[in-house]
Amino acid sequence: MKTDIEIAQEAKMEPIKDVAAKLSINEDELEFYGKYKAKLGDELWERIKDRPNGKLVLVTAINPTPAGEGKTTITVGLGQALNYIGKKAVIALREPSLGPCFGIKGGAAGGGYAQVVPMEDLNLHFTGDFHAITSANNLLAAMLDNHIHQGNTLGIDPKQVVWKRCVDMNDRALRNIVVGLGSKMDGVVREDHFVISVASEIMAILCLAEDMQDLKVRLGKIIVAYNYKGEPVTAADLKAVGAMAALLKDAIKPNMIQTLEHTPAIVHGGPFANIAHGCNSVRATRMALKMADIVVTEAGFGADLGAEKFFDIKCRMSGLKPDAVVLVATVRALKYNGGVAKADLGQENVEALKKGIVNLEKHIENLHKYHVPVIVTLNAFVSDTPAELEFVQKFCEEKGASFALARVWEDGGRGGEALARKVVDTLETKESHFTPLYPDDLSLREKIETVAREIYGAAAVTYSPAAAKALDRIESMGFSNMPVCMAKTQYSLSDNANLLGRPEGFTVNIREVYVSAGAGFVVAITGAIMTMPGLPKVPAAEGIDVDESGRITGLF
Amino acid sequence: MKTDIEIAQEAKMEPIKDVAAKLSINEDELEFYGKYKAKLGDELWERIKDRPNGKLVLVTAINPTPAGEGKTTITVGLGQALNYIGKKAVIALREPSLGPCFGIKGGAAGGGYAQVVPMEDLNLHFTGDFHAITSANNLLAAMLDNHIHQGNTLGIDPKQVVWKRCVDMNDRALRNIVVGLGSKMDGVVREDHFVISVASEIMAILCLAEDMQDLKVRLGKIIVAYNYKGEPVTAADLKAVGAMAALLKDAIKPNMIQTLEHTPAIVHGGPFANIAHGCNSVRATRMALKMADIVVTEAGFGADLGAEKFFDIKCRMSGLKPDAVVLVATVRALKYNGGVAKADLGQENVEALKKGIVNLEKHIENLHKYHVPVIVTLNAFVSDTPAELEFVQKFCEEKGASFALARVWEDGGRGGEALARKVVDTLETKESHFTPLYPDDLSLREKIETVAREIYGAAAVTYSPAAAKALDRIESMGFSNMPVCMAKTQYSLSDNANLLGRPEGFTVNIREVYVSAGAGFVVAITGAIMTMPGLPKVPAAEGIDVDESGRITGLF
Repeated sequence: MKTDIEIAQEAKMEPIKDVAAKLSINEDELEFYGKYKAKLGDELWERIKDRPNGKLVLVTAINPTPAGEGKTTITVGLGQALNYIGKKAVIALREPSLGPCFGIKGGAAGGGYAQVVPMEDLNLHFTGDFHAITSANNLLAAMLDNHIHQGNTLGIDPKQVVWKRCVDMNDRALRNIVVGLGSKMDGVVREDHFVISVASEIMAILCLAEDMQDLKVRLGKIIVAYNYKGEPVTAADLKAVGAMAALLKDAIKPNMIQTLEHTPAIVHGGPFANIAHGCNSVRATRMALKMADIVVTEAGFGADLGAEKFFDIKCRMSGLKPDAVVLVATVRALKYNGGVAKADLGQENVEALKKGIVNLEKHIENLHKYHVPVIVTLNAFVSDTPAELEFVQKFCEEKGASFALARVWEDGGRGGEALARKVVDTLETKESHFTPLYPDDLSLREKIETVAREIYGAAAVTYSPAAAKALDRIESMGFSNMPVCMAKTQYSLSDNANLLGRPEGFTVNIREVYVSAGAGFVVAITGAIMTMPGLPKVPAAEGIDVDESGRITGLF
Repeated sequence: MKTDIEIAQEAKMEPIKDVAAKLSINEDELEFYGKYKAKLGDELWERIKDRPNGKLVLVTAINPTPAGEGKTTITVGLGQALNYIGKKAVIALREPSLGPCFGIKGGAAGGGYAQVVPMEDLNLHFTGDFHAITSANNLLAAMLDNHIHQGNTLGIDPKQVVWKRCVDMNDRALRNIVVGLGSKMDGVVREDHFVISVASEIMAILCLAEDMQDLKVRLGKIIVAYNYKGEPVTAADLKAVGAMAALLKDAIKPNMIQTLEHTPAIVHGGPFANIAHGCNSVRATRMALKMADIVVTEAGFGADLGAEKFFDIKCRMSGLKPDAVVLVATVRALKYNGGVAKADLGQENVEALKKGIVNLEKHIENLHKYHVPVIVTLNAFVSDTPAELEFVQKFCEEKGASFALARVWEDGGRGGEALARKVVDTLETKESHFTPLYPDDLSLREKIETVAREIYGAAAVTYSPAAAKALDRIESMGFSNMPVCMAKTQYSLSDNANLLGRPEGFTVNIREVYVSAGAGFVVAITGAIMTMPGLPKVPAAEGIDVDESGRITGLF
């Protein structure tokens, strides 16, 4: 069997100008990064912005398991399939982070015959957007520490610095550090922390900004520290906004690549959904909606994280209205949720499926709370049996969701025809009455508790003393009308990675709370989730290589 | 008067494919990064590698002063001027680092009407090469700390880790840090350090590697730490080579841009000359020599640093043979060396000039030690007087160096006609008998002392106990045949930034020594030089901005 990278490398890509031409994009409106990648400039947006929007379809999933669900594979495959049945569809994805590529998860280009290409470029530096974000983040940090070192006229309290450095790498040794050691010339000693770049507020800002003007306004609002009086100090106070914006001037432009079947894919921004808001950029999604009849986008991890934040943060802030949701599951993952060990997932086990399907059930119920039509799809696997498939289909239809099997991993767009037809049917016959889960004017605690109760299924929420204090301060600073951005393990509906299926009666523990004033949300960190991952015992990096001709192997 | 960025932004650039076409490069041999930047692929090299080489001209300078010398301006202007008088010349430059752009020095695109463009792109992310180097450096660091954390089967001594993390930023707070704090899951506590990315050994390797195969061999040899037995642990031992090479697969390809007069400029690699070896990549210089009759390249800071390492490291390792050297000075900088305060440099002062010209004198003498013809050029300034210019010219001619005034800042290539003609005349009439300063088989201490005595003019060299111990260890490890890479302040011929002119009788203090086994040299750190710069009280970043259309201001 061919690996994903072998399939990707065998692909005959079309020059990206030809892919763009199908959407009537002129060559002059593209900024090329090689033959197969391009950025879409502001001129294009100016030309198309008054067109009517296409339909917006979100792809989300049940809670991820080691068995794999293939959310990106389905997103890409659905985009291919819609084109296969004659629709004009565009895909809007996030860019992958380098961290997981070298860690355990691998890249994020889809899989099998449902991939975006060039996959090596996408998974490595791509068009440099994440590097630009990392640079802007770390310029702000350097200017902050320099300000303190050079006399500290703003009166920044080194014990109340909240801005963290970042690196696009899984590097646990940088989670908790002390900087500024050495001599008098080596800065001021203080505790510091690195986060992975996808968790940087600048990533969120880039994904939520309307345009360069809005980007600068948001950058200026970033709270980097508090002064000795307890008042916030911002990036604007440090005069860092212009230089950060200069670093981001190209990164703010969406990127276009293609699928294996030459479907246009707009890939832009990449916050993780467990530690950030988990959606691609508003600009990319908007641009896609002006160029296609149907836009297929995704949000990270399970629907409790990615979809919740897609609805309650991205759509709330941007005014985007989703027309349908595709919820991805696999028979294997459902059996895993039913208690089957990873090694035994290949055997038929309808009993375990019945037990594990409660995870899917909860996600269907959750998605209905947003009043958007739901289509469940099973990402087919060779070991799935007819009895298992039939059981899942019946279950979904009883729960008021449409169902379609997808064989896009094996067969590309052709294998997604049933799903594509079901999606089109849904868009044509069912109306979306999208509403966010909670109104703006709830208190921050009420918002956190609404998400925990309604989406996670929690019985209660507790706050650490630090979190409670932070919430009071943030409310008093006037940020209570912001949505909350929950940081939580992706593996469970709860904040405990070990609780599979549909846990009940559990408590969600809020460990830390801070405001991302530029992004426009309040982050609540639950359980043991960390904003800087670590590498596993045998990192994926050990298996990656490149030959003399520049061909990469071992990337997945 | 227009600023450099205003001149650059008004430039009518030619599409880079047209610039490349003048050198008979096909469009298929270019990898475009927008319309005005391209990477030159291996196919091109394969096609041209058997051609005879053009002539190689190095541009270097006297010790830099706050008055500015304009080495890059002269390099660019000379390239333009050679084309202006009908020669086929190509420029080979280094890429700028983000650190100085936001700090005090600014970018490195030349100045006035002798610039390479697009200057904003060049000074910011360019084609991402430095980000790739930073990522590869930090992947290796993450894998190293992860190895220790995950059981440490290689027996790495956390107190003998020599690999440092890096960031392309002036950030003094990261010079001396402690990592791995927190809980058991947060890695192993140890002292660590960040260097600026241009000082990373990976930058040096990228600049010295013959090809991808050689790059991998060199990456594998990097010594990251010593084990508890005192034996070296390498990047190959950590199985990090393939993934690092994958990160560098595009960065290893030279970049092409153009001057304001459409002269092709190959810009690739960018080690600083005070803390690293200071030259653009061997691959870029080689490629340029196959495409042009004359290649104008530069090495960083003064000739005591950049030129010495160009000759003793880059040329020694690669077999490149320089045909002439252009030594850049300004009347203002010479007067500054003669003791004139910065505010008074605009007034004629032949006495101060006489006093300060000893700095130029020493550099002429030094360059003659390499048996390469020397042309001195004055980068003309509006305040220079005929008496001053005449004095410098006579002085140079008495010292056996040719002389030409250059007005390229004001007039571009036309203003460099006299210099270009002098260079061509030198290439046609004087033969270069290039020889490195010292043979391979001197001991490391003898090499350090040869450079200190012959080039710097030192009376003696002292070694800190740590440096002496490191030298013994490195000799015993079998690295004594390597050249030395001196890290020294750029402001003085000595290792004390305050000693201007031509200091004598001073001692050079070797503070720290380590081997860059992959790069192939031994680094000797002198005086107070630091491998991580800091930001000034008012960083240049504060003056940088970008407007809604993406136009950048304040970058210089």
